[in-house]
Amino acid sequence: MDKTSKATVLALDIGGTFTKLGVVDRQGHILVSKVVKTEANQPFSVFKEQMKGEIALLTASLDATHSIVAIGIGAPNANFRTGEMINPHNFKWGPLVPVKEMIQELLDRPVFMTNDANASALGELYFGVGKNMKNFVVLTLGTGLGSGIINEGELIYGEHGMAGELGHVNVFPQGRQCNCGLKGCLETYASVTGIKRTVFELLSDSNAASVLRSYSFEDLTGKDISKAAHAVDSIALEAFERTAKILGSKMADTVAHLEPEAFIIAGGLSQAGDLFLKPLKKHMETALFNAYKGKVNIVLSESTSGEAVLGPAALAWQGLGL
Amino acid sequence: MDKTSKATVLALDIGGTFTKLGVVDRQGHILVSKVVKTEANQPFSVFKEQMKGEIALLTASLDATHSIVAIGIGAPNANFRTGEMINPHNFKWGPLVPVKEMIQELLDRPVFMTNDANASALGELYFGVGKNMKNFVVLTLGTGLGSGIINEGELIYGEHGMAGELGHVNVFPQGRQCNCGLKGCLETYASVTGIKRTVFELLSDSNAASVLRSYSFEDLTGKDISKAAHAVDSIALEAFERTAKILGSKMADTVAHLEPEAFIIAGGLSQAGDLFLKPLKKHMETALFNAYKGKVNIVLSESTSGEAVLGPAALAWQGLGL
Repeated sequence: MDKTSKATVLALDIGGTFTKLGVVDRQGHILVSKVVKTEANQPFSVFKEQMKGEIALLTASLDATHSIVAIGIGAPNANFRTGEMINPHNFKWGPLVPVKEMIQELLDRPVFMTNDANASALGELYFGVGKNMKNFVVLTLGTGLGSGIINEGELIYGEHGMAGELGHVNVFPQGRQCNCGLKGCLETYASVTGIKRTVFELLSDSNAASVLRSYSFEDLTGKDISKAAHAVDSIALEAFERTAKILGSKMADTVAHLEPEAFIIAGGLSQAGDLFLKPLKKHMETALFNAYKGKVNIVLSESTSGEAVLGPAALAWQGLGL
Repeated sequence: MDKTSKATVLALDIGGTFTKLGVVDRQGHILVSKVVKTEANQPFSVFKEQMKGEIALLTASLDATHSIVAIGIGAPNANFRTGEMINPHNFKWGPLVPVKEMIQELLDRPVFMTNDANASALGELYFGVGKNMKNFVVLTLGTGLGSGIINEGELIYGEHGMAGELGHVNVFPQGRQCNCGLKGCLETYASVTGIKRTVFELLSDSNAASVLRSYSFEDLTGKDISKAAHAVDSIALEAFERTAKILGSKMADTVAHLEPEAFIIAGGLSQAGDLFLKPLKKHMETALFNAYKGKVNIVLSESTSGEAVLGPAALAWQGLGL
């Protein structure tokens, strides 16, 4: 596609709290965008009406020389193959939500949908730090742990479009209770919520002084833990160390499956920067099989939350084969 | 390719003890084949001379209407991208063995090489129980644990051609010593050697009577353990149970990465049949993330050791795009 083209895609990032809409060109420029509150507690038909209005406004605000050639959607629990959100937590939209079909009705263009973590991985491939890579894994360490796997420049979708749920790899068979019903899932350790749980475990096991003793579980944030660690708080430092050890070991297992060139770390926990990256690299390296040692990078995502539409935009471009 | 074609490929399965050669058509018929002792303790040039003679004999014995259009090679530690065997244990051929180049010199046809477990996975895809599947993982449970991953009908090779070493996924951070230098690798539990180690652990922990108390570690085989289990020997049954529990849990982790349709189990341990398959299915199912429950099969390979050339043959056919 040449640089003078005015083709664009409409990108939707549907979240439990906010839905982000944007029109994006092949170079990753966000031409127009908007953030609206997701009516997740209302029936799905309400969301449909809302999208109808917002898409009309957005397309009307577009320069007349631009045309929308496809639509990309990222959403929690979205299935690439069926175009549905499947049992999405925090949404009162039913067990099978036909988002792709709904958008297709609003705008008669090719529509592509996948889960938010997969879309993020494509965003990194097209417009982010994965731009010059073909094989990598994106780990989004936020409330949970989301993941997307790129192999030879393509997402791995799996047999039913549900591949890449690394948050539910097992760490300890009788470990922490996970929201999914299993015990010891990786996201109960390696996520913002996970490191909070580790801080509270350390506060109960040890009697060391710590600024973190003044926080309730609800109030404590990832930033608070980072700040404490920068101030050499022993509990905070140990929490990062333990989180890195568990995640590093599981990343080594992921390498034994896929042998990626790199991991791209995104989400709240990535904001700790070197504080987390250094122990993570050390622990992954220790756990790697010989053939992989020294060959797998860990890098931080440079994408901001304002750029969340770049993932679904990349999905649309890839869907078009561009 | 139509059924009247006489195009064939030359397939080589190089093992530490034997090298198997065969000429195979696109339907998986082995037209001619031979097994020779691998001169793994002699210099690589000796193996080259040996192959020169054997390939000449084999091609001479071919019906004149057949022509060899490509060569496929499966070998331990073989790298698809470089065409070399890298630090192969049990071979005195040096750290980087240019097998692909050597065969190319002998026969001027396209040559494709990958590790033996990857080649087996392609063999299942083209000619075996994976014939009607696009997404599956082959686990070969023999002396070690070999694996090959098929995604959308293609092998996953990884950034440097080294993907699919599931034998070195970690089970316990301070677990059993592995040949690779790490501790607690999956193959130290889930392989013929692994179940032998488990039997010896059980014989030391428990004081139950068992026919297995009369075997030395060296003499004990996977068949002996199966036979004892069929005779309701409690140590043997518990060894299968523990092996299945560990492997089942790690297979659930593999599903969280790749969401395959099935696992295909091959190698010595697969000969135990339902004795192993039943607990394995139970334990994998328990450990699976909700979205995957009831969706992933475990099947036994039907390929025999006499058909080992079918893997490298499939590699050659896939290399040709056929």
